[in-house]
Amino acid sequence: VKRRLAELGEDRLVKRLTRSLPTLANVVHGPGDDCAVIGGPRDRVWQLLKTDCVIEGIHFTRDIEPKRVGWKALCRAISDIAAMGGEPAHALLTIALPLDLELPWIDAFYAGVRKAARQYRVAIAGGETARSPGPIFINVALTGMVERRQCILRSGGKPGDAIYVTGRLGGSLSGRHLDFVPRVIEARWLANLFRPHAMMDLSDGLGADLPRLAAASACGYRLQRELIPTNAGASTDQAISDGEDYELLFAIAPSMRTRLESAWHRKFPRLPLTRIGELIHPSHTRKPNTVRGFDHFTPAQ
Amino acid sequence: VKRRLAELGEDRLVKRLTRSLPTLANVVHGPGDDCAVIGGPRDRVWQLLKTDCVIEGIHFTRDIEPKRVGWKALCRAISDIAAMGGEPAHALLTIALPLDLELPWIDAFYAGVRKAARQYRVAIAGGETARSPGPIFINVALTGMVERRQCILRSGGKPGDAIYVTGRLGGSLSGRHLDFVPRVIEARWLANLFRPHAMMDLSDGLGADLPRLAAASACGYRLQRELIPTNAGASTDQAISDGEDYELLFAIAPSMRTRLESAWHRKFPRLPLTRIGELIHPSHTRKPNTVRGFDHFTPAQ
Repeated sequence: VKRRLAELGEDRLVKRLTRSLPTLANVVHGPGDDCAVIGGPRDRVWQLLKTDCVIEGIHFTRDIEPKRVGWKALCRAISDIAAMGGEPAHALLTIALPLDLELPWIDAFYAGVRKAARQYRVAIAGGETARSPGPIFINVALTGMVERRQCILRSGGKPGDAIYVTGRLGGSLSGRHLDFVPRVIEARWLANLFRPHAMMDLSDGLGADLPRLAAASACGYRLQRELIPTNAGASTDQAISDGEDYELLFAIAPSMRTRLESAWHRKFPRLPLTRIGELIHPSHTRKPNTVRGFDHFTPAQ
Repeated sequence: VKRRLAELGEDRLVKRLTRSLPTLANVVHGPGDDCAVIGGPRDRVWQLLKTDCVIEGIHFTRDIEPKRVGWKALCRAISDIAAMGGEPAHALLTIALPLDLELPWIDAFYAGVRKAARQYRVAIAGGETARSPGPIFINVALTGMVERRQCILRSGGKPGDAIYVTGRLGGSLSGRHLDFVPRVIEARWLANLFRPHAMMDLSDGLGADLPRLAAASACGYRLQRELIPTNAGASTDQAISDGEDYELLFAIAPSMRTRLESAWHRKFPRLPLTRIGELIHPSHTRKPNTVRGFDHFTPAQ
């Protein structure tokens, strides 16, 4: 009997796909982080590459205002560039559309893309159109740049690091997942002044993404549930498992805590920054939390 | 009554989508060519960016060997990099998969991607997986590089230029569309030694693509149907309208003809190079051929 995708789950699928892929000398970091990182060991600036998709029926439905879908499509990729400490640059869109799609939908979708592109100074440099025999399918390929000394991976965390999260989590499905604000300014400020050891954006929820950051850093983690900042109306369980928060999750030397927190609150007085736990030696980790984040290939959720 | 996509056609859709998109100073060429071109006016090397997709039910069916689908998915984008005179570098794959997909399909698909990546020295630098509620959807984002002085656009053709095509055309649906060979070596040799005025790859068929090259160059064209090189079993009409040949189409100063043809036949003795017409002053153009290329948004064909 042939095994099917539904039995595998996302992380194991990605591991399976990225076995023995051809690479080149100038790929600093390939699959496994928020972006691919391209450059030489002595280059002052590295290039970031990201690809991401939104699909009708998975990430949005036809009754959502298309302008918000366009905003979300581009901002998801921008958020991944930010999570490396980088700045977005050039985007290419692939849009596969059913023949019966009404033109005002397309126009409004592009209005949302343009709004995000202007706000984050992204150039829409090209794209591709195709016919879809099923749902609307939109792919965004985005390049960015990051100063080599400010490039923050997922894998640099150390036991003892304090774990922080920006903003508040949970309840994205009430609509926030369509209007979120990628943390480009905040991430670049952090990367420049405080060099977190590891950073990523929260797309699949703390319950899925924190274990990924810890595993990439060869660490365990201790999460203090009672410290998790929740959005109004969202429970702590939702803050852990809903996903699509697009806030920053990062690990930083504990000696930085006081200076970081006071500088943050002066610089970004309206955006919370919350310490929610710490990275620990891997052998100290208990079984993962039973509350899980979002897995794209787990059917029933 | 709202207008729908089916009434518009591909070229008008693209024109509609690319109105007033934000751009940046270092976008040398944005939407409208085979790739976007990024760089400064004095940079020795420019970056090429391409995004492209293959969709189950449009570009392939589930009964096709998945290894050939993987080859095709990457080689389509490689062909577009070649058409600018460039060399491919880094690819990112987005794959949206239905939950019931069998894992051997995915493994064989990736074997095809790896084969193409190795052959053309492309690094698979990352990607994204998602669940598809419908067909398999695969997007390839590919970067490349081209020496500034060898970058060939669609738009540089001049009245009087000879129009050439590599290889033979037509009949791709018999299977050739899954095993084609991107003309990277040939295109770079041409760009380096002969500087065609305009070049593109034939993805939608001569009947759709030649008018695009001529229009981008603000020229008309004269096509000598009897000269079109056809694949065994394919008619001239099929050579014009089938699409998915992935051969090079280029326009070059007529004074180059003799030298080009003899150098080509010494360098690539097994690959035909055929002059099929010429670019002319736009006012001399008759109505477009009634035999058309492939339009992705025309329902019945």
